[in-house]
Amino acid sequence: GSSPRKEGGSNGNFVADVAAGGKAIYMVSDGTGWTAEHLVHAALGQFDYCLVDRVCPVNTHLFSGIDDVETLMEIIKQGAKEGVMLVYTLADPSIAETARHACELWGVTSSDILSPLTEAIASHLGVSPSGLPRWAPGRKNSLNEEYFRRIEAIEFTIKQDDGALPQNLTKADIILAGVSRTGKTPLSIYLSQKGYKVANVPIVMNLELPRSLFEVDPEKVFALTINPVVLQTIRKARAKSLGFGDENWSSYSEMDYVKAELEFARNIFQQNPIWPVIEVSGKAIEETAAIVLRLYHDRKNRCSMPRISKRY
Amino acid sequence: GSSPRKEGGSNGNFVADVAAGGKAIYMVSDGTGWTAEHLVHAALGQFDYCLVDRVCPVNTHLFSGIDDVETLMEIIKQGAKEGVMLVYTLADPSIAETARHACELWGVTSSDILSPLTEAIASHLGVSPSGLPRWAPGRKNSLNEEYFRRIEAIEFTIKQDDGALPQNLTKADIILAGVSRTGKTPLSIYLSQKGYKVANVPIVMNLELPRSLFEVDPEKVFALTINPVVLQTIRKARAKSLGFGDENWSSYSEMDYVKAELEFARNIFQQNPIWPVIEVSGKAIEETAAIVLRLYHDRKNRCSMPRISKRY
Ligand SMILES: Nc1ncnc2c1ncn2[C@@H]1O[C@H](COP(=O)(O)O)[C@@H](O)[C@H]1O
Ligand SMILES: Nc1ncnc2c1ncn2[C@@H]1O[C@H](COP(=O)(O)O)[C@@H](O)[C@H]1O
Ligand SMILES: [Mg+2]
Ligand SMILES: [Mg+2]
Repeated sequence: GSSPRKEGGSNGNFVADVAAGGKAIYMVSDGTGWTAEHLVHAALGQFDYCLVDRVCPVNTHLFSGIDDVETLMEIIKQGAKEGVMLVYTLADPSIAETARHACELWGVTSSDILSPLTEAIASHLGVSPSGLPRWAPGRKNSLNEEYFRRIEAIEFTIKQDDGALPQNLTKADIILAGVSRTGKTPLSIYLSQKGYKVANVPIVMNLELPRSLFEVDPEKVFALTINPVVLQTIRKARAKSLGFGDENWSSYSEMDYVKAELEFARNIFQQNPIWPVIEVSGKAIEETAAIVLRLYHDRKNRCSMPRISKRY
Repeated sequence: GSSPRKEGGSNGNFVADVAAGGKAIYMVSDGTGWTAEHLVHAALGQFDYCLVDRVCPVNTHLFSGIDDVETLMEIIKQGAKEGVMLVYTLADPSIAETARHACELWGVTSSDILSPLTEAIASHLGVSPSGLPRWAPGRKNSLNEEYFRRIEAIEFTIKQDDGALPQNLTKADIILAGVSRTGKTPLSIYLSQKGYKVANVPIVMNLELPRSLFEVDPEKVFALTINPVVLQTIRKARAKSLGFGDENWSSYSEMDYVKAELEFARNIFQQNPIWPVIEVSGKAIEETAAIVLRLYHDRKNRCSMPRISKRY
């Protein structure tokens, strides 16, 4: 959703929030709960129009690691009292069935988001699901090749942030180029968590770019551009959050300078027509990431229909 | 899933993979496709037992930004030819219905993972879903307070990596302490993307920790520990990937040293009993993150039942 939302370090007291009104959604998982959170978040995007301005405020509450029926029943009972809706991912079919049944009994709207998909996949593969939750004993640990590759990608990406170590550009899978505050850093980090080694190179007015940028495979370079008004807004917020007065940072967020710097970048992009130019204005990080990765995989695989493929 | 998986920079040619066998799952979204990918990934965890060793290999193919019926039909037709299963998130109810119908007609197993939840939420809130996909025109952009807070958290966390700038520990929401290769960096980054400012402080044998670590609120410090055998495995992989021979790095991954360093860390943890000690062996980053955040929110809110709450 694009509504203002509070979580993280500076969040308030949510018990008080509930008292202050708003419908609640309980999310229960025998694992981390991130899957339920992700899907609920996407679904709430369908209600943005009334979430904004708090016309229909919603509070979500995530209960993770719930793998015993007793705790589950306690949560559902509490939920029934509070009039919440329950969204759950419970790998053990009998526990999932117990949840469904209890919700029916106590009049709690519920949505099992795991079982329907697991069952469809089971019938597609012609094998049965294990019914074992993520933290079931005897589960293999995660020290596989992919685990190491991802961590390496993250560490590489951090070290390459903000134009550092240009001699390493050749080792990157993806290189992002753009002026300050086009979101290069968060985008790099997002992509690195998916296993890509990312380097980002800032474009600064009248500053020469590292020569290595023009020596690498141009198919792995992605240019970021942004609307000047949006960029000015972001830069002003940035200067403020860094505690700089308008005097020191005037040129950085001044419209003439912003436009000239974007023009400077555009010239570079035109000289490198293989670099796709991606417009980031108004896009969330994960949205720009989707666009970059679609192009990246399309270039690599040259399928008839652009796709991102993975093998399990 | 904990099976070996290929994606990212060094992936091969997936068209060849499909030919090489394995059932396929097509994921189609009018948005980024990350929600479908996340849920499919979790559901495939139920088939880990047969994915490992490639007894029932699965190939997934993600099609993002599919918001017109023509392209959708093309994908479903292609999927029918290849005998795939279709998982989709399509916000427009008439397009979702078209997908369901076409799959039925062409004998493609399908799973609509968005509509059931959206409908349940609609009935819970007593309002209708917008039916507008993520990239529908007229959608508000994402430059809200949360957007800026997240980006600030990511940038803060990168700057604080590996014990840098100990004078900033007081500004962190969460501080992670542990010996090398307990996953502090990827865990910090994961948490920062959820909006938390994270600092991580490495514990190195016989090295004094920054004094500021003992001056901050101890309730925000989390200690990481790990099984010595697991740690040795990770450190050996690390030394190898850095291209160091056994000679240079012997003590780093030598069992006596590994055990002594963990003992050194344990002593520090015992002197700071408020720090929870989290065992990371065999846990994926998102799993440790779930444990850290549950404790973090529990300490902040002191609910009867540990939960992570959020307001939309
Ligand atoms: N690797 C896995 N093995 C088995 N079950 C999993 C795995 N990953 C996720 N799940 C299940 O998928 C659901 C969502 O997981 P989570 O996102 O951790 O809440 C839970 O019911 C988990 O038990
Ligand atoms: N902010 C949003 N507004 C409207 N729909 C959204 C939003 N975020 C996600 N969705 C929908 O949720 C589904 C999953 O999104 P995605 O993860 O981008 O594929 C898609 O059908 C999107 O159209
Ligand atoms: Mg940056
Ligand atoms: Mg580190």
